[in-house]
Amino acid sequence: VAGIAPPRPADRLEAFSDGVFAIAITLLALDVRVDGFRPGELAAAIGAIWPRLLAYGVTFLIVGQVWASHHGMFRWIGRADHVLVLLDVAMLGCIALQPFPTSLVAESLRDGTGADRAVAVAFYSGLLFVGGLFYNAVWRYAVRRRLLVDGLDPRMVRLQGRRYSVGVVVYLLAALLAFVSVWVAVALDLLLVVGYLVPSPDLRADDARP
Amino acid sequence: VAGIAPPRPADRLEAFSDGVFAIAITLLALDVRVDGFRPGELAAAIGAIWPRLLAYGVTFLIVGQVWASHHGMFRWIGRADHVLVLLDVAMLGCIALQPFPTSLVAESLRDGTGADRAVAVAFYSGLLFVGGLFYNAVWRYAVRRRLLVDGLDPRMVRLQGRRYSVGVVVYLLAALLAFVSVWVAVALDLLLVVGYLVPSPDLRADDARP
Amino acid sequence: VAGIAPPRPADRLEAFSDGVFAIAITLLALDVRVDGFRPGELAAAIGAIWPRLLAYGVTFLIVGQVWASHHGMFRWIGRADHVLVLLDVAMLGCIALQPFPTSLVAESLRDGTGADRAVAVAFYSGLLFVGGLFYNAVWRYAVRRRLLVDGLDPRMVRLQGRRYSVGVVVYLLAALLAFVSVWVAVALDLLLVVGYLVPSPDLRADDARP
Amino acid sequence: VAGIAPPRPADRLEAFSDGVFAIAITLLALDVRVDGFRPGELAAAIGAIWPRLLAYGVTFLIVGQVWASHHGMFRWIGRADHVLVLLDVAMLGCIALQPFPTSLVAESLRDGTGADRAVAVAFYSGLLFVGGLFYNAVWRYAVRRRLLVDGLDPRMVRLQGRRYSVGVVVYLLAALLAFVSVWVAVALDLLLVVGYLVPSPDLRADDARP
Repeated sequence: VAGIAPPRPADRLEAFSDGVFAIAITLLALDVRVDGFRPGELAAAIGAIWPRLLAYGVTFLIVGQVWASHHGMFRWIGRADHVLVLLDVAMLGCIALQPFPTSLVAESLRDGTGADRAVAVAFYSGLLFVGGLFYNAVWRYAVRRRLLVDGLDPRMVRLQGRRYSVGVVVYLLAALLAFVSVWVAVALDLLLVVGYLVPSPDLRADDARP
Repeated sequence: VAGIAPPRPADRLEAFSDGVFAIAITLLALDVRVDGFRPGELAAAIGAIWPRLLAYGVTFLIVGQVWASHHGMFRWIGRADHVLVLLDVAMLGCIALQPFPTSLVAESLRDGTGADRAVAVAFYSGLLFVGGLFYNAVWRYAVRRRLLVDGLDPRMVRLQGRRYSVGVVVYLLAALLAFVSVWVAVALDLLLVVGYLVPSPDLRADDARP
Repeated sequence: VAGIAPPRPADRLEAFSDGVFAIAITLLALDVRVDGFRPGELAAAIGAIWPRLLAYGVTFLIVGQVWASHHGMFRWIGRADHVLVLLDVAMLGCIALQPFPTSLVAESLRDGTGADRAVAVAFYSGLLFVGGLFYNAVWRYAVRRRLLVDGLDPRMVRLQGRRYSVGVVVYLLAALLAFVSVWVAVALDLLLVVGYLVPSPDLRADDARP
Repeated sequence: VAGIAPPRPADRLEAFSDGVFAIAITLLALDVRVDGFRPGELAAAIGAIWPRLLAYGVTFLIVGQVWASHHGMFRWIGRADHVLVLLDVAMLGCIALQPFPTSLVAESLRDGTGADRAVAVAFYSGLLFVGGLFYNAVWRYAVRRRLLVDGLDPRMVRLQGRRYSVGVVVYLLAALLAFVSVWVAVALDLLLVVGYLVPSPDLRADDARP
């Protein structure tokens, strides 16, 4: 009887994901532009687009950190089957769309009312939240289907799962708090960048370390 | 007598293909934008572009699935000669163009008549169909020229070829049915994403499995 | 005495080049768009941009073939020093710019006079010519500085150099003939795609083949 | 007691960086376009955008050289921890933004006053300067945290650090001199491309060379 193809090594999926991350993060720069300027007023025109520069810098850091975390997660995921690929693709679909709410935030800071800003930042954080759900789904699915590399400590794996959940909660909180204060919401979105500086735990069991 | 250079390993062609897939899929997001908004009306402006968000999500899933299938196909293709490279490049030319009909579908949903929508979805599905033809040509050519990896079961290889043909037929059907119902056509286009969840068969002969 | 760093393996330069090729070729699609359409007239609007679709298809094939040739050339180049890197970067600068004359050709076919078309196709072919000069400079420099892989037949290496020169001559001819007939010029530009189907010679000396 | 995950090999970070460099350098071409042309005047329209072509060529060379230097630097960096990743991401954020001041320079050359040009070139050079600071931070951090590959000569490593500092000083000088002469500033920005042709030193200790 013919079998089904065994799960493939996850490295190609990781390389594809790296590509999407690299492109999405670089495309952010396309929204940084001046809308024309009168002779002698370039400096003022650049000053006027500070929201675009700010939105660019903040989102570049956030997406860069999500990439780095994703890269760290796939250190422990050894194989990929079809469902894992689709979950990861759905997560990438959120990342690739992030430039859209980024530009909404920048435009609403310049031309919008307080309500517009709240909507923009809520969308911005909400998309990070949905992406985070898929991110966590990738991890949970990989754990349940035993797609992790060998030699990991089950207790550490569980702890890591909870660690990943924290991000989702933070982004959800930011999406809700956007209607109270957009700056508090943005600060929450940036929190995970700072949190990323905390060294991540070694998931390997004691006897699997070199 | 000087010989001709033997077929090269296919891994570089696969990496190049992965790059084009990753870029094309990420560029889809460039068409998700609001066309300006009046102060206080950002939420409404976002709501008004639901066709762009929908078209983005659907196409991201479809192109992501084609990438995953392509990646699966090259698991069995070991070497590449000049003709195979050009066939694959032609297939990539279709994928890279997919954002164009995607935006046509989105715009026709907002501003077009029923006839416009049919044209847009027929083009959309038709491009997937043409890409599928080249996709199948890559496989058939690789089989005929013995560019596959060693140890595959000829019967399974033939079955896999038929499996790939199904996609082309589905896309052709979608292109034709677009003139009856655009939603049925889109559903057909999405069918292969669902079908992808069916685990793909192991093409190796019994004695070539580890 | 401190030495200077020896030439590095060329694989990273090749991967970077592959990336630029993949992005440039995919960005070509950004110029395929309709300039808006009136309700009920989408099919006509698509028909009206046939020059953009044609220019896209032709250039995708040409850049795809240059990528494939470049990939073939680096099969024989084993190491890269600083000068080789800059020559390759200059060549990539031409490839990355190719979407610009591509759009000029498309626009001049729709809205331009015969003189505009000649200028556009001459620019298009001229850029391929300049890129071809750098392409040949990469090969010649690699040969002269002994950056090739070991075991190549010097006679075959010389022949290959002449083969690469042919492309430059063809592109130069196309640039000049554009002022006589744009279609002859485009046909010449496409000639190398067809020529690519001729299997390339094995440059290894007899005793270096497996 | 659970440990923390040891620093990872730096090759994935380098591949991600290569991706961002390749995309940013290719996106430069998006700003090379004519703003429409009247029938029969395409040649004049191309001539009128010489600042865009010049800015494209200069920036392509500069970013290409920064990539090549970065690639050379990571030859000696063997491992990456969380802080190194964020420093590198911040550097990439500057590189990815470089197309913005590039277009400002091009536009100010065409439509701006002398003051506009000074502002644009100062921004252009200033962004290279800030990117250079992060570039140096990556190196210094890697040295201090012992993330380099084994077998390097400490004296040579120190010398290399000073070499990298030179670039930052040159870019800072260019940013300041932009207010005196934009052409002197651009010449300074290009200086490092020429300087790159000087072979870089071998950092390995005598007994670590093959």
